Amino acid sequence: MDKKINKTERIAMITKVLVEHPSKLYTLQYFSDMLDCAKSTLSEDIKSIEASFEKHASGKIFSVSGAAGGVYYLPLISQEAIQVIKEDLCAQLSKPERIITGGYLYMNDLMYDTAWLNQIAGAVISSYDVSKIDYVLTIETKGIPLATVIARMLNIPIVVIRKSARLTEGTTIQMNYLTGSKKTIKTMALPIKSIVRGANVLFVDDFMKAGGTTKGVVDLMKEFDATVVGAAFMMLQKTDDKKLIDDYFALVELEGINETTEEIIIKPL
Amino acid sequence: MDKKINKTERIAMITKVLVEHPSKLYTLQYFSDMLDCAKSTLSEDIKSIEASFEKHASGKIFSVSGAAGGVYYLPLISQEAIQVIKEDLCAQLSKPERIITGGYLYMNDLMYDTAWLNQIAGAVISSYDVSKIDYVLTIETKGIPLATVIARMLNIPIVVIRKSARLTEGTTIQMNYLTGSKKTIKTMALPIKSIVRGANVLFVDDFMKAGGTTKGVVDLMKEFDATVVGAAFMMLQKTDDKKLIDDYFALVELEGINETTEEIIIKPL
Repeated sequence: MDKKINKTERIAMITKVLVEHPSKLYTLQYFSDMLDCAKSTLSEDIKSIEASFEKHASGKIFSVSGAAGGVYYLPLISQEAIQVIKEDLCAQLSKPERIITGGYLYMNDLMYDTAWLNQIAGAVISSYDVSKIDYVLTIETKGIPLATVIARMLNIPIVVIRKSARLTEGTTIQMNYLTGSKKTIKTMALPIKSIVRGANVLFVDDFMKAGGTTKGVVDLMKEFDATVVGAAFMMLQKTDDKKLIDDYFALVELEGINETTEEIIIKPL
Repeated sequence: MDKKINKTERIAMITKVLVEHPSKLYTLQYFSDMLDCAKSTLSEDIKSIEASFEKHASGKIFSVSGAAGGVYYLPLISQEAIQVIKEDLCAQLSKPERIITGGYLYMNDLMYDTAWLNQIAGAVISSYDVSKIDYVLTIETKGIPLATVIARMLNIPIVVIRKSARLTEGTTIQMNYLTGSKKTIKTMALPIKSIVRGANVLFVDDFMKAGGTTKGVVDLMKEFDATVVGAAFMMLQKTDDKKLIDDYFALVELEGINETTEEIIIKPL
């Protein structure tokens, strides 16, 4: 009886710790101290948890061997699940009441809804080799919650590019850039302390049109000796011209909005 | 043997689902469908998980009875754990290299670090009756990641007040307000669609000085028939005058920065 309770307690606590802190590496010693249990038993427990997650195709536990080894959890989702998210997003985004005068689409409710953010973030991290990413980068404002949820899943810091330098952020690198669609001059600014030299960053935003901002971000990162290893968006806007960057990921594409007929054409990618 | 595996699988999957989606209510039927198991067994399983969490003083499972009932998880932490976070924050924030010319403190790394955000968010949600909160409100930019992590823990939307109205956000209520410390005029703007009338909101930000922004937020919320049921900050700045609002929560208080001696005086609250 006592042993049974212990096993339940071990499975519950190991699962809780791993799932609550995705991408954080825990040693067997950590669980051994917490649960007062032999490492061989814990190793078996973790294998059982791993098998359960695999059976339900829901997240994945990774083992790292060696002296600095341990286990960590990553909330990866399947290609089928990503497809469902894309279709759900299209259904949500094509509601006529979203049309804003000027031919824009109201998306705040999705970008600020934590259930949607979890799903979009899950799709993004499942589409990259996340082990190589050091920071999740975004530009203020609407992409920050998505960047935060992704960064939390990857257990890495967020970096937020500002539209102007702030007194409270210290020495800053500022850069002017041209937006791709309307060719207006804008500024981006980032404190020097934000990024360690030589880092790999994943750029995340809600929306990409021509790609001018993203190209600006890639250029700005050069000043930090950083490499943009990916650029992920909730939505693309279809443009006649080729995007200003080549390599990007998005869930859905907006083909057009007709303000008169209240028709929104949006498709999964 | 077969039964034992099933029990492990059940405990792992129930724990995973609850911890991965805090504050989301799951019915016994949900788990019964997922795990092909009688509700009475699942009810026992959930009690065992609850007991394990309680033994390790790490998060809490709540049961809601009745037809619309079920269980949910909330990552609450103890008063002792909050005290530890406050002291860790003080140790981090009092490092001389944080001093920025002008007497400011560099805090981006903390406000953009997901491990710190988890801890601060855990302290905030453990200090309020969160069952009454409908939205986590913040004002751009630095408080958005903290608001996101809190909103994720509470399974409610984020609302982000902008510093000016945006074309892509539709009809907006705009308000001018006076900052408390330097008495400059600033603007806050929020799309009408952002908040359902009559809502309760928790305002969250990185830092409060005199409280002018927070008072502005309280006033703006009146236009939405919304009530600010709490205002939570990572840090307060000590001021000679009384703050412009009465009811707030913060983890630490900055008493002063001496740029010459490079001394930062900061204390847990």
